Amino acid sequence: MAKTNPGRFFEDYRIGEVIHHAVPRTVGAGERALYHALYPARHALYSSDEFAKGCGLPESPLDDLAAFHVVFGKTVPDVSLNAVANLGYAEGRWLRPVYAGDTLHSASEVIGLKQNSNGKTGVVYVRTTGTNQRGEPVMDYVRWVMVRKNDLEAPAPEVVVPELNAVIPAEDLVIPEGLDFSRYDFQLAGEPHRWGDYEIGEVIDHVDGVTIEEAEHMIATRLWQNTAKVHFDATFRPDGQRLIYGGHVISMARALSFNGLANAQMIVGLNGGAHANPCFSGLTVKAWSEVLDKAETEVPGVGLVRLRLVATSDGSVGAVKGEDGKYLSGVLLDLDYWAVMPV
Amino acid sequence: MAKTNPGRFFEDYRIGEVIHHAVPRTVGAGERALYHALYPARHALYSSDEFAKGCGLPESPLDDLAAFHVVFGKTVPDVSLNAVANLGYAEGRWLRPVYAGDTLHSASEVIGLKQNSNGKTGVVYVRTTGTNQRGEPVMDYVRWVMVRKNDLEAPAPEVVVPELNAVIPAEDLVIPEGLDFSRYDFQLAGEPHRWGDYEIGEVIDHVDGVTIEEAEHMIATRLWQNTAKVHFDATFRPDGQRLIYGGHVISMARALSFNGLANAQMIVGLNGGAHANPCFSGLTVKAWSEVLDKAETEVPGVGLVRLRLVATSDGSVGAVKGEDGKYLSGVLLDLDYWAVMPV
Amino acid sequence: MAKTNPGRFFEDYRIGEVIHHAVPRTVGAGERALYHALYPARHALYSSDEFAKGCGLPESPLDDLAAFHVVFGKTVPDVSLNAVANLGYAEGRWLRPVYAGDTLHSASEVIGLKQNSNGKTGVVYVRTTGTNQRGEPVMDYVRWVMVRKNDLEAPAPEVVVPELNAVIPAEDLVIPEGLDFSRYDFQLAGEPHRWGDYEIGEVIDHVDGVTIEEAEHMIATRLWQNTAKVHFDATFRPDGQRLIYGGHVISMARALSFNGLANAQMIVGLNGGAHANPCFSGLTVKAWSEVLDKAETEVPGVGLVRLRLVATSDGSVGAVKGEDGKYLSGVLLDLDYWAVMPV
Repeated sequence: MAKTNPGRFFEDYRIGEVIHHAVPRTVGAGERALYHALYPARHALYSSDEFAKGCGLPESPLDDLAAFHVVFGKTVPDVSLNAVANLGYAEGRWLRPVYAGDTLHSASEVIGLKQNSNGKTGVVYVRTTGTNQRGEPVMDYVRWVMVRKNDLEAPAPEVVVPELNAVIPAEDLVIPEGLDFSRYDFQLAGEPHRWGDYEIGEVIDHVDGVTIEEAEHMIATRLWQNTAKVHFDATFRPDGQRLIYGGHVISMARALSFNGLANAQMIVGLNGGAHANPCFSGLTVKAWSEVLDKAETEVPGVGLVRLRLVATSDGSVGAVKGEDGKYLSGVLLDLDYWAVMPV
Repeated sequence: MAKTNPGRFFEDYRIGEVIHHAVPRTVGAGERALYHALYPARHALYSSDEFAKGCGLPESPLDDLAAFHVVFGKTVPDVSLNAVANLGYAEGRWLRPVYAGDTLHSASEVIGLKQNSNGKTGVVYVRTTGTNQRGEPVMDYVRWVMVRKNDLEAPAPEVVVPELNAVIPAEDLVIPEGLDFSRYDFQLAGEPHRWGDYEIGEVIDHVDGVTIEEAEHMIATRLWQNTAKVHFDATFRPDGQRLIYGGHVISMARALSFNGLANAQMIVGLNGGAHANPCFSGLTVKAWSEVLDKAETEVPGVGLVRLRLVATSDGSVGAVKGEDGKYLSGVLLDLDYWAVMPV
Repeated sequence: MAKTNPGRFFEDYRIGEVIHHAVPRTVGAGERALYHALYPARHALYSSDEFAKGCGLPESPLDDLAAFHVVFGKTVPDVSLNAVANLGYAEGRWLRPVYAGDTLHSASEVIGLKQNSNGKTGVVYVRTTGTNQRGEPVMDYVRWVMVRKNDLEAPAPEVVVPELNAVIPAEDLVIPEGLDFSRYDFQLAGEPHRWGDYEIGEVIDHVDGVTIEEAEHMIATRLWQNTAKVHFDATFRPDGQRLIYGGHVISMARALSFNGLANAQMIVGLNGGAHANPCFSGLTVKAWSEVLDKAETEVPGVGLVRLRLVATSDGSVGAVKGEDGKYLSGVLLDLDYWAVMPV
């Protein structure tokens, strides 16, 4: 009997089923340093324990995206091993910071199923929750993927498509307990621009770029225990290229966005995202952002900005789709998220 | 007077001599994270402090192979700087887990010497012991290497060839104190297969592959303070290639073996191993295992499996040697080890 | 209004001005492990907490050069973003070891200004001080760079050129509090050569070499939050090459110097340094040292050696400049520093 994991096929999912993903992971000082080594991450709240204390937190948490990568990585063997396409994200919320010594676990509930008309694939919707060693949720998000059927004769399940918010309402976002930006130090943070300085519709070119290396994306992707073959095995794709984990591009673009958004300190919501074009080693990733919305909170000194973060391989700024409604070839990522910013 | 280390030559070794290797090393959260970043390591006992506690340990230890690499790395300047061939390993036993904050030190006793008939080289056998800061042994193993003579006129020493076990008897293996698999969580560990599910002779194709990068093998090899020139200096070999540290291939193959052997949690014995062919960057390492033996223990829930772990550069499975008795060109590593597994 | 940092131009600096650089940084076990992974670092004081305790310190500090890189990295956005040349270093002193958990902050005082005769650029001298979370200085150094003017009409400032020591007098160096080499373990440190064994004028070829990889220098440079475009973006220079951060070469050469200078344990002074030729990936860095001076101290067992550390890309030893007084093309680095050594 085969001992290796064949992954799940479309007909293996049942609405309401909860999948407890394997291999919990303790994170700490090493993951924090590696995050700063792999991405040009400079947001002060994640760089300095002292700065974090000044914002009401006990110490610097693990970068929000690192927490996402760890939670996401665990789902790969159960959700996307036989996926043919990663279709979308929605309703991602960070619910509690992750600190050194925390152990993360992921579980996914199947919340939607829809077989495609070709009878060979179907779309699976899961809501994934990451929890810490005390059973407290640290984040949840919805993801949907197109998965192959193994048994083409398996009957199509009843169609269930979840209703998802295109944008998480600001009042549903969770600001970390204790956060307080009323004594925020703009000089140490690196930029003077506060919440009131950003206008809806404003576009920010983050200027800097990083050329992607095979060793770096593999080190990052392994660190999150995402072991999808396509990222590591140059013999897997016919063209001999290793496809770069989309999360590597997300983290790279977010880190680059420091230059212009140094005070967009914590990510609290992920409204959606598309990996517009595949990324390969040798490309130079640059990024720009657009302010999509703003909201106030009742937390001292804390405002919310909704940002579009676009990563490119051609340095273009401002445009994402062509007249045909398709992503331009130089666009790698189109992400829509909420962050907290000092008012 | 030259201040740099010329290494030892064959005539410099004496039977019974104990060499205390330099540069003790404190390991911690950084080494743990880097191990997960450099190898697709997913064994739950090393990934999650909570899982390790559920198995009776105080926290996740450093990966057994990382401990081996640290202990081994220290021996290089004294044992293999002038080696022309790494001939074998035997009787390797892990005696105590290594935890964050431990400081490792290595010492080697010369247990065998045999000059070759050409008078230019000889074989040196050492038993190396790694100890922690309390002087407790954490592992020991025998290694033999062929070393050059510097002074060809030096007399041949009396021939001493140690008798070594081809396989460590199961009763000589040390199960870490406190280990208890009676409440082992197979779901969190990632696979349902227990000790009773594996049959002697069974072959497992671990399916996944990783293409080797220069930066990755150098980062790994340096981390263990193994500074043999041939791994780092592209001008050293006539072909301009950097030879990859054999231990990098061992760790890569062991990590890949998670897929099918997720419950072979801890390595407790190294019966032998051969680096069948040299490994260079650009090759894609895959792995397969064969169950060679099984044994029971008196520790709650803990069984032993003896595994052959084979790493390949061509994805082949099942064959290691040709009709001529030589290793096939696609075989990189042929390792024989004991691991603990929940019954 | 542009939100990104345009950097400072020559006319933006004022004598006596103190610039508090952004993004303090907490360092720890991860940075320590990464330093050992990126450089062949083996000095025992930084490798083993036990060895450091034996020398009177509470535990292994962060490598002196890592502390320098962190302090230096913070200055880049304010000092060298519009620099056209990095002209020199002087009077660098390590004032206090940096331990895991420390948070570093940098500030620079403008101590010199001199507009060039072309009216387009000028030289800026700053004295940078790194402090920990208790406000204690951990190091300071002078650096001068040539910076572009943005407004060519801006009036030239009064010329102020600081008087700098070509060599820091030994009595001005700070030996870490508590350091005591009277029970120094030469065997564990890796070499028997003590302070008395080195002669002024002695040249040591460190023999080993490391071929530079893009992924490695970028990982290192990012870790210190040095985000100068030229190190990361292959589209930035017309030749498509990424210029390697000079500090990467410094750390590589210093780590290589273990072989022959294993007991030059801590760096306490930086007299000066020149990045003689640019370094690019693919080059193989080797190093040699010359003993420039020696001094005694009143600290038990501790002597001082002044060393010239030269990194090369061609393996040459002993010569740095040609008859024309210019650096030879194979010289990458010419550094002059003070280190402590057991007497």
